[in-house]
Amino acid sequence: MQNIFAYIDENKDKFVEKLQKLCRQKSISTQNAGMRETGELVKSFLLELGAEVKYLQVDEGFPAIYGRIKGKGSKTILFYNHYDVQPPEPLPEWDYEPFSASLVDGKLYARGVSDNKGDLIARLSAVEAFLKVVGTPPVNIIFFVEGEEEIGSPNLDKIVQENSNLLNADCCIWESGEKNFEGRPGIYLGVKGILYVELEVKEMMRDVHSSRATTIPNPAWKLTWALNSLKNRQERILIDGFYENVVPLTEEEKKVIKSIPLEDERIKKSLGIKNFLLGLKREKRILRDLSEPTCTICGLRAGYTGPGSKTVLPHEATAKIDFRLVPEQEPDDILKKLENHLKKEFPEIQIHKLGEAKPFKTPLDAEISRIAIESAREIYDLEPVIYPTSKGTGPMYNLCGRLNIPCVSVGVDYAESNPHAPNENIRITDFIEGIKHIALIMKNFAE
Amino acid sequence: MQNIFAYIDENKDKFVEKLQKLCRQKSISTQNAGMRETGELVKSFLLELGAEVKYLQVDEGFPAIYGRIKGKGSKTILFYNHYDVQPPEPLPEWDYEPFSASLVDGKLYARGVSDNKGDLIARLSAVEAFLKVVGTPPVNIIFFVEGEEEIGSPNLDKIVQENSNLLNADCCIWESGEKNFEGRPGIYLGVKGILYVELEVKEMMRDVHSSRATTIPNPAWKLTWALNSLKNRQERILIDGFYENVVPLTEEEKKVIKSIPLEDERIKKSLGIKNFLLGLKREKRILRDLSEPTCTICGLRAGYTGPGSKTVLPHEATAKIDFRLVPEQEPDDILKKLENHLKKEFPEIQIHKLGEAKPFKTPLDAEISRIAIESAREIYDLEPVIYPTSKGTGPMYNLCGRLNIPCVSVGVDYAESNPHAPNENIRITDFIEGIKHIALIMKNFAE
Repeated sequence: MQNIFAYIDENKDKFVEKLQKLCRQKSISTQNAGMRETGELVKSFLLELGAEVKYLQVDEGFPAIYGRIKGKGSKTILFYNHYDVQPPEPLPEWDYEPFSASLVDGKLYARGVSDNKGDLIARLSAVEAFLKVVGTPPVNIIFFVEGEEEIGSPNLDKIVQENSNLLNADCCIWESGEKNFEGRPGIYLGVKGILYVELEVKEMMRDVHSSRATTIPNPAWKLTWALNSLKNRQERILIDGFYENVVPLTEEEKKVIKSIPLEDERIKKSLGIKNFLLGLKREKRILRDLSEPTCTICGLRAGYTGPGSKTVLPHEATAKIDFRLVPEQEPDDILKKLENHLKKEFPEIQIHKLGEAKPFKTPLDAEISRIAIESAREIYDLEPVIYPTSKGTGPMYNLCGRLNIPCVSVGVDYAESNPHAPNENIRITDFIEGIKHIALIMKNFAE
Repeated sequence: MQNIFAYIDENKDKFVEKLQKLCRQKSISTQNAGMRETGELVKSFLLELGAEVKYLQVDEGFPAIYGRIKGKGSKTILFYNHYDVQPPEPLPEWDYEPFSASLVDGKLYARGVSDNKGDLIARLSAVEAFLKVVGTPPVNIIFFVEGEEEIGSPNLDKIVQENSNLLNADCCIWESGEKNFEGRPGIYLGVKGILYVELEVKEMMRDVHSSRATTIPNPAWKLTWALNSLKNRQERILIDGFYENVVPLTEEEKKVIKSIPLEDERIKKSLGIKNFLLGLKREKRILRDLSEPTCTICGLRAGYTGPGSKTVLPHEATAKIDFRLVPEQEPDDILKKLENHLKKEFPEIQIHKLGEAKPFKTPLDAEISRIAIESAREIYDLEPVIYPTSKGTGPMYNLCGRLNIPCVSVGVDYAESNPHAPNENIRITDFIEGIKHIALIMKNFAE
């Protein structure tokens, strides 16, 4: 592997430039901004590696790029990544323009660099190293790069169903990991599910003067009362039956979770918060992160939100809400329960579903779990941190659950990468180590 | 008066053009947009009439324009108006550009045309008619045109205190009235008070990924719970002591209110609503409008509010709230009660006061009340609708309460003028009748 690692070190600048090129290409799926152009760019990167490339697509939606590269053995690794990113707002809170891909003090700042363009380029680079140094990768490689992850992968199920023969593999490497504050790499063996909805209340045709509030209904109040009915101040979600399908963690999972380092003070300092929710600390905090479902207000909007005052009675109000789901909560079932809950007391509230995904987990003792962990020990010279599930979500079920492929998630980001937030960034040293980790996984999985 | 009315009819186009000129001049006080330019324009209009003009101003804030024109008798009428307007948002809901002052089908559309530029030009035009036709107005005239009404007149108290000798008068004509759906002119003898605050919750330094919602506090939830604690679904305001100083209406006021025409169906149709708040109808609805204080969410903002979904945990959340107050509720006292209420359970919520005004009323039997009513009967040939108070607010107390001047409010707007809302407009015929009404009040008050 020394030749491979040397090639990676020697070509560091080239890999970083390729990543900058990808980050400078805007690709905001929720706004349909730059999607086609980014798809073409990813395709060109795969063609440069000599991959057999095609667009997998259903009638609607952004293309997923499929690339296959023949390797030495009979085994196949599937790399899952996505080229779409979250909107960059709030813009004033960025220190660098979000699509400038600015390189400052060894960090690359860009919307999407941590989630998930850095990992995609790392994997392309690892494959390139084998191709250039030894001519062939040690395993067959499939790249699957979708463009709809940030909007809940609405077409992934269909794409996977229609192309299951193309996508089959012996294991899957999922999109990202995260180094903790001590620099220990994270390895994730599962994801939570999600249901993302927008609640909308519209009471009248237009805003009116707020002096009329004595007798004209206010949708902002109705939304407030409806939201209040969803979760109480003790953080208990009040939707009837919300928790009924939750499967508790196994004892072994709890044991692994107990070995996750406690970084309470560093996390609090990094976010500028005094306490965690409900005053939770240490093991209890981590256990909650990895076992509890959530109900989160991601956005609220009604009436006048500019500077100063405006005495207006708004005619509509909206809230964006996500529910993170744990095994065996099903998004469709939760949606039905939410509908039942609201229609009783707030029949005027409309629910728009904006995204969903089921939870998924790979066992601790699967071959790819073991190899990812051992390879990480070798590359990082630190004990990796193993998460039986992530607190985040991805469409892992739709790909790996459907095709029955064990899956682990490793990546190039770190504790202060700020995914989905201003000043998203990765460290270049992590990026290079991440390329080497992927290369070693390929070699070890082949043996 | 026939010569005066003829002059008004003959110069209709000129008056409308003057109004368009004023409406095309943006003057959004809450955003400090175009304020100086508009002040100069109002000053120039007063100078054209030969008024003795000066700026009344305290250290900060936008200038109030003072103009005095000597009349025949010893009596003095004070005209109160304001040249500032509300922000025009939401822009997509306007049929005409808000500062284009478009004249369409006998209506003039512009932000501020109903509140309150139309009335200002109507009064200037009525005075001009006397000056041009008979050389002098029948009473001494004082114009007082402030630029901070839409932001709660923060400097009016000081201006009035420092210039009480300049502002003293025998009566005051307040800024606006409103024709109802039948065309009957409204005459208002009072205003509600107001307290406008912004509630702000900031939990951390930046937005984070919503997967962290298991253990990171969410300011949008805290705001939701705090708002919920302010008012219940039965519209009862829950702040301790909120209602304790409320003085009920007198029997005579209730009698006058009972004569206010019931236009329930027309109002509902105009707003596109099915029912009034709490299912109120007819007399009960009107009684509530004119007697109850309110607590209104004017604006809500947190996290991502753009199209589609973004899985973000917002780091701050804000709500803009106005309280409309009735005699003898005091804004400072209500603010103290709000602070006490929130600090118990939501100490992290910051309260920013953005505006305030006390309620004020003039008796039904005051001389100017009687004259305004009789003059309206003559001009409009319809019985005016008398409101012992408006459901709206203005700084009437700060001017007329402080100086002990009886005050009535009449104007050129109508039931669908949409003040503070998109497509604000007045009808040109109402504008011309309003000029004549002011002229007749001047003549009748002189006698």
